Amino acid sequence: MTDGLAIGIDLGGTQIRAALVRPDGTIEKRLSTRTQADAGPDAVIGQMAGLAASVSEGVARDSIRGAGVSSPGPLDTGEGLALDIPTLKGFINFPLRAALSDRLGLPVALENDGIAAAIGEWKFGAACGFDNAVYVTVSTGIGGGVIAGGKVLRGKRGMAGHVGHMSFRAGGDTCFCGNAGCFEAYGSGTAFTRRAMRAASTTPGTALGAGGGEIDAEAVFAAAGAGDHLANALVREEADILGTGFASLLHLYSPDILVMGGGLSNQFSLLEPWLMQSLRSIAMPAFHDTLVVPAKLGNNSGLIGAAALVFDPD
Amino acid sequence: MTDGLAIGIDLGGTQIRAALVRPDGTIEKRLSTRTQADAGPDAVIGQMAGLAASVSEGVARDSIRGAGVSSPGPLDTGEGLALDIPTLKGFINFPLRAALSDRLGLPVALENDGIAAAIGEWKFGAACGFDNAVYVTVSTGIGGGVIAGGKVLRGKRGMAGHVGHMSFRAGGDTCFCGNAGCFEAYGSGTAFTRRAMRAASTTPGTALGAGGGEIDAEAVFAAAGAGDHLANALVREEADILGTGFASLLHLYSPDILVMGGGLSNQFSLLEPWLMQSLRSIAMPAFHDTLVVPAKLGNNSGLIGAAALVFDPD
Repeated sequence: MTDGLAIGIDLGGTQIRAALVRPDGTIEKRLSTRTQADAGPDAVIGQMAGLAASVSEGVARDSIRGAGVSSPGPLDTGEGLALDIPTLKGFINFPLRAALSDRLGLPVALENDGIAAAIGEWKFGAACGFDNAVYVTVSTGIGGGVIAGGKVLRGKRGMAGHVGHMSFRAGGDTCFCGNAGCFEAYGSGTAFTRRAMRAASTTPGTALGAGGGEIDAEAVFAAAGAGDHLANALVREEADILGTGFASLLHLYSPDILVMGGGLSNQFSLLEPWLMQSLRSIAMPAFHDTLVVPAKLGNNSGLIGAAALVFDPD
Repeated sequence: MTDGLAIGIDLGGTQIRAALVRPDGTIEKRLSTRTQADAGPDAVIGQMAGLAASVSEGVARDSIRGAGVSSPGPLDTGEGLALDIPTLKGFINFPLRAALSDRLGLPVALENDGIAAAIGEWKFGAACGFDNAVYVTVSTGIGGGVIAGGKVLRGKRGMAGHVGHMSFRAGGDTCFCGNAGCFEAYGSGTAFTRRAMRAASTTPGTALGAGGGEIDAEAVFAAAGAGDHLANALVREEADILGTGFASLLHLYSPDILVMGGGLSNQFSLLEPWLMQSLRSIAMPAFHDTLVVPAKLGNNSGLIGAAALVFDPD
């Protein structure tokens, strides 16, 4: 039986969150702070160390086994480097793992955020007990991570599982990554909201944006739930896109289960009927029995997954 | 040191090929026959057994360790079943592995053809020595197989790596699989030839198809090599499509090396400059150093890969 505790840290461009995590994946204490994204690596490492100290305050030093960090990529997790994180100034070829380990006096594991969340859902969430799992987060962008044959799929430099940047419609809409036609450019929450704003401005009679109300993903789902025709069409279009992308992922990885996380997974039940219809119309019949479910750990999957690496680095 | 010999069998809709293979991947004897694709499983199993007997004629029975079969899918390689092979009549939920093993009196390994070829190239060909490799065959269709972290990526029922059926242009051209917009529907040799025939019929002055000459992939490459303008544009378009699809595969699997096999890889050097330009314009910079090379074992990679499973089932 594994004992001790681990510190999980979720480093994001907006927030840093840290938690003290037990070997069974439950959280003992959790704190967060706003990321000083423009202040450079030293300041951010300082913020991470400060949160780590705060969540482990009053805990016997020798019961803490180490820290796991979930970070946006691209990283070289083999070498422990941040290669060039777009949302964090100065994180260019920066030895994130060593810098934090020196500061904490603890071993540190570094993982891409999509893979860390996949590990969280695999070890303690919706994919628990399955040997083959794909996790897809649908939020501002689209990210993910893959478990195959009971192992984390990492590839060269730990960069596998960039599921948002597979071709969806070659030569199509521009993606955050700068290229055209990625899955993320069509299926992300950002793309969903963009379509909603465009459609609302030209569709008479829709409740969306009426009276100057803000149009975000939640507003579209709320209007759809209230029977708004345009909002329902937008939800259906998003579900079609996700079903098409997910079908590709089944063909590529053949998971037992696909777990959808991120902000849009909060409305999984509204998306599900159309998403599954789209997926099954595209996936080859041998893949139709693959489970597709929402994440269980909410926005803690990366935090918990990173901490899990402290107990079991594989 | 592994000793003994293995029988490799490549079961195809047109041909069955069998070889006696040494532990170092070299071929001692090879034979082939035309597949009786409409005659049902019993007849085809008989053909495979007959070829196996012929290639091992005169070899001491106890030096033959077993047979490995590369087969078109979908298969359930965990259970040893052919689920429903489109090109072979009656191969529906058929226990291919057990039927052949009974007939040969030898252990039999069963593998999807794309994965078998990937194993061949990984163990003895272009990807030898790399822990992370993607093999893509570009021929009538597009298939493939993946090695990740020094292990074969199989997924549920061994069905991972259907790289031809990821979305390329959602809602686009119809694929052999019946759906719209797959990579195969754009990048395969079939799609390449279809574009060439269409363009040749409406382009004055091209050498392609002049005087009633047949238009196939070889003819397009030959005309391109001779400076024909249309043929060069067609080769460039094909290279662009392949580069786009390969960029997706780098993002998804993060291989050290991508190996291109199949008929079109015979012209790799003509495709390469444009293919790499397209790939690098789309792949994120962290993936730009990934090697992209043609296969080394030609049309024997599946045969040799299947035989390799006899010596090392992993």
